[in-house]
Amino acid sequence: MINKKQFTIGIDIGGTKISGVLFDGKNVLADYVLGTPKDDFNHFMIMLGAVIEPLLAAAKKNKKKVAGIGLGIAGVMDKQAGKVRKSPNISFLDNKYIRAEVEKKFSLPVKIENDAACFVRAEAIIGAGGEYKSVYGITIGTGIGGAWWTERKIFEGAHGTAGEPGHIIVDFKEKIDLEGVYHRLMGRNPEEMAARAYAGDKRAEMAFLEFGGYLGMAFANIINIIDPEIFVIGGGVVESSELFLGEVKKSMLAHAFSPEAGRVKVVKAKLGEKAGAIGAALLFS
Amino acid sequence: MINKKQFTIGIDIGGTKISGVLFDGKNVLADYVLGTPKDDFNHFMIMLGAVIEPLLAAAKKNKKKVAGIGLGIAGVMDKQAGKVRKSPNISFLDNKYIRAEVEKKFSLPVKIENDAACFVRAEAIIGAGGEYKSVYGITIGTGIGGAWWTERKIFEGAHGTAGEPGHIIVDFKEKIDLEGVYHRLMGRNPEEMAARAYAGDKRAEMAFLEFGGYLGMAFANIINIIDPEIFVIGGGVVESSELFLGEVKKSMLAHAFSPEAGRVKVVKAKLGEKAGAIGAALLFS
Repeated sequence: MINKKQFTIGIDIGGTKISGVLFDGKNVLADYVLGTPKDDFNHFMIMLGAVIEPLLAAAKKNKKKVAGIGLGIAGVMDKQAGKVRKSPNISFLDNKYIRAEVEKKFSLPVKIENDAACFVRAEAIIGAGGEYKSVYGITIGTGIGGAWWTERKIFEGAHGTAGEPGHIIVDFKEKIDLEGVYHRLMGRNPEEMAARAYAGDKRAEMAFLEFGGYLGMAFANIINIIDPEIFVIGGGVVESSELFLGEVKKSMLAHAFSPEAGRVKVVKAKLGEKAGAIGAALLFS
Repeated sequence: MINKKQFTIGIDIGGTKISGVLFDGKNVLADYVLGTPKDDFNHFMIMLGAVIEPLLAAAKKNKKKVAGIGLGIAGVMDKQAGKVRKSPNISFLDNKYIRAEVEKKFSLPVKIENDAACFVRAEAIIGAGGEYKSVYGITIGTGIGGAWWTERKIFEGAHGTAGEPGHIIVDFKEKIDLEGVYHRLMGRNPEEMAARAYAGDKRAEMAFLEFGGYLGMAFANIINIIDPEIFVIGGGVVESSELFLGEVKKSMLAHAFSPEAGRVKVVKAKLGEKAGAIGAALLFS
């Protein structure tokens, strides 16, 4: 359970920015964002420090101790070793024992987790999934990540590699996964595509509808396997959810076998762009 | 835990036969099979009795009491109500409170479960999945069923409708599920198709290879979501597994995102055609 008197720091480490929060188990008390350096690990550690220091200072000002630092990192983690296995967008993190590095630097306990899993943890505990026990979260931004929250934890699978909804194959003939379809339909800039759709561009509108159809079928397949209570959709694309959410629900219902599929909810995330950092802070709840 | 001194009866109720076993928690002590009547529920109950009576007699001969009767039934069960929600191949069972009917007839406790889940339960407890904690079982016969064994039980999902691998959509453009592809490739008689493939018919060989490719991709999607330790494949088609099992593994590895996918095993079921009845008997373990 969350000890409300305990402050924790959560950091969301993505390809473009490092976003941090000071968190009391319920509310964000301070937050800070810097760009992710592109060059090397030493520079990265300096910038990470530049995000964490003001949050530690804010805790001190509140006369509170910080219980630990949670790191949500884009990529595949080896949580037991505290190591980044592979981070496609921040390649200098590959094989870095980042937990030990950050523990040494700040003399505080550190935990690491995949960034999409942090998003789901936050939404499942204090966000859109807060009332549910079995929450499937998916975050759609530059790529597509996600995880399943059940039994009060992120489901990790037998080898720690569950929770890859972006890699569900959705076109078996062309062997393209959901993320591949998303990139094909949205191009490099989903926000621009959304702007065009809002301006009445029919091809852009159709791209969102088609994506919604694929996403709904991926949800149907997830229902066929784990039958969750609710899907929570987050990430940048949620700003444009009117363009595709209706189609997601329609497609999901049309393709799920379960006679109870109509009871599975599909909702937008609640916590906005700080969800990942909040989820990282909640690693200490 | 299984009480080895306890005898139970397990009945596998399929579209073509009613297959029963007397089980001591480890071994089948007696078994009996009759055809499933096609006409109505009264006739069905008489035939069910004709399978159960000799098993009860066999228990009596061994001077053992029978602790209960497990029923594995093709279709969607309402386990809480003890009711068949929908049985596509035995339609007179639809909406029947079969648990209460059988309890009344034999004055013994009765439990019901989907037949594919019974197959998985048996293989996970005493069959090919016996050494593993997270077992995904799939049974391929007339249709395709399956279930996931984790935390020492069949995973049921939030609405009791998890475990429908046959209904994973595998062709998003044509909106066909795995079972649909199987029927398309194998026709009405997979055994005949296998005989043709063994006789050197190239088209029949290709049909099995293509099916193996689709099955492997479905397994890859299951890995992306729940990352199990092992897949166990049962049902009639396993007799012809040389025709497609290699392709299943190749396709699964090619399409799973997990760097650990190579550690996920794919094996044939061990218990043969009695697996369903044994799993039903294990409902009382």
